[in-house]
Amino acid sequence: MRPALLLMACELFGGDVNKAIPPALAIEVFHNFTLMHDDIMDKAPLRRGKTTVHERWNQNVAILSGDVMLIQGYMLMMQVDNSILRQVLDIFNQTAVGVCEGQQIDMEFETRDVVDINEYINMIRLKTAVVLGGALKIGALIGGAPQQDADLLSAFGEQLGIAFQLQDDILDVYGDPEKFGKQVGGDIISNKKTYLLIKALELAQGEQAIELNALLNASHLDNAEKVSAVTRIYNELDIRQYAETAMQTYADKAFEALEQINLPNEHKQYLHHFADGLLVREN
Amino acid sequence: MRPALLLMACELFGGDVNKAIPPALAIEVFHNFTLMHDDIMDKAPLRRGKTTVHERWNQNVAILSGDVMLIQGYMLMMQVDNSILRQVLDIFNQTAVGVCEGQQIDMEFETRDVVDINEYINMIRLKTAVVLGGALKIGALIGGAPQQDADLLSAFGEQLGIAFQLQDDILDVYGDPEKFGKQVGGDIISNKKTYLLIKALELAQGEQAIELNALLNASHLDNAEKVSAVTRIYNELDIRQYAETAMQTYADKAFEALEQINLPNEHKQYLHHFADGLLVREN
Repeated sequence: MRPALLLMACELFGGDVNKAIPPALAIEVFHNFTLMHDDIMDKAPLRRGKTTVHERWNQNVAILSGDVMLIQGYMLMMQVDNSILRQVLDIFNQTAVGVCEGQQIDMEFETRDVVDINEYINMIRLKTAVVLGGALKIGALIGGAPQQDADLLSAFGEQLGIAFQLQDDILDVYGDPEKFGKQVGGDIISNKKTYLLIKALELAQGEQAIELNALLNASHLDNAEKVSAVTRIYNELDIRQYAETAMQTYADKAFEALEQINLPNEHKQYLHHFADGLLVREN
Repeated sequence: MRPALLLMACELFGGDVNKAIPPALAIEVFHNFTLMHDDIMDKAPLRRGKTTVHERWNQNVAILSGDVMLIQGYMLMMQVDNSILRQVLDIFNQTAVGVCEGQQIDMEFETRDVVDINEYINMIRLKTAVVLGGALKIGALIGGAPQQDADLLSAFGEQLGIAFQLQDDILDVYGDPEKFGKQVGGDIISNKKTYLLIKALELAQGEQAIELNALLNASHLDNAEKVSAVTRIYNELDIRQYAETAMQTYADKAFEALEQINLPNEHKQYLHHFADGLLVREN
């Protein structure tokens, strides 16, 4: 998805897509660096159905390989014209720091009792959305986009990324197990502070609040029971509706930014369709 | 040492040292990134007499902080003029990959029975020496050095770095405990494949070879006994002499490269003295 967005952004402005290939690879190599280090931190045994690097070899290999991949990301990203080299690398730096910061905040949330919705949105913006915005902006610059259009495309990607992550939170609870590709209810089982749980903790009162907190602290509970009990509370509190409204708000912002880009609509259709496709992965 | 070399190189060619400060910081931040990740891999409890990051906080914090420091290194390194930006970053990339590769090879040596002296020299070149060469070359370019002189200064740094690491291997066994700052014999205790051990394994024959291998595999042995027994074999085989000759060879190559730089000798004195100081840390 990330390299595809970069290439599409370049093409959108009539750029030579061949010139965008090394930076598109850079974004993908960078993304895989973050996954490799995240998998160590999460002690994840599997990634894309295969054994993770730290499991297959060892943790040290995964740390070092990730480090080299980050450097390789820079090497690939530098394969742009001198006229945009500094600007492209500035965006890449900001993106990279954002992802690491987002990951750090995400880990901190695990040990905190209360997380605010705005803090959560900022975390997913940094961890997930900034890369999409960065990839699009770099592609736009390679394609010769005016600064203002490049900024609008970056905003499009960032808002789209937030919407995409909120959809992921929703699908984790309400997704069709056959289509979702992950274990439905996984976030509930691991007490992950998603938009849904944060909102539920914010809205639950009295008995409901006591029950929800008891479910989060229960150690004896069967996973299926826990998923069904927490989902029932979500339903009582209309959490899905809140989450879908929030997701729609960010999606709308994304499409507004795309709308404002100074290009004929038919040029933007492809990107528009791609984004539409991202946001209806399930239903 | 690394940032100082970068600043000295800039000044050597009459450059504005203020312009070299962010790249000098970059080299130091980069170096500390490598230490932070190396300390995780080595499970080191202490660094510069203080608790390591992964011990003080946790491993995930150390991985992520290291990642961000590498990115910060790029941000600082980019603060050079556009005219040399690409070249400086190319050097930085090569340096960074070299260090990671050197660390990987160093770890692989631990599990190998036989390591060749040339493989060892290549490992310390990548892990330690390339950064010195890179720092000097970047400083030279900021100072406006001609390409050939920048390359010579880079060679000076690389050869000096190899000599410096060989000296470190020697001091670990033969250093004055009061001046060395590390535990004398630490390499022997941990069976570290240093120049000395590799050379001894290469030269030892018959009874001596059997005894040396037995010492490496002995689990019951007292540390002081092991250090003294291995050192005795080193002495019998004249290992110190071999190591000092090798060190001197690389030091000579370093000073030859410095000699060839197209500048008056008095300009090179400061760098010469600095290198001399590095290579007589003990005696």
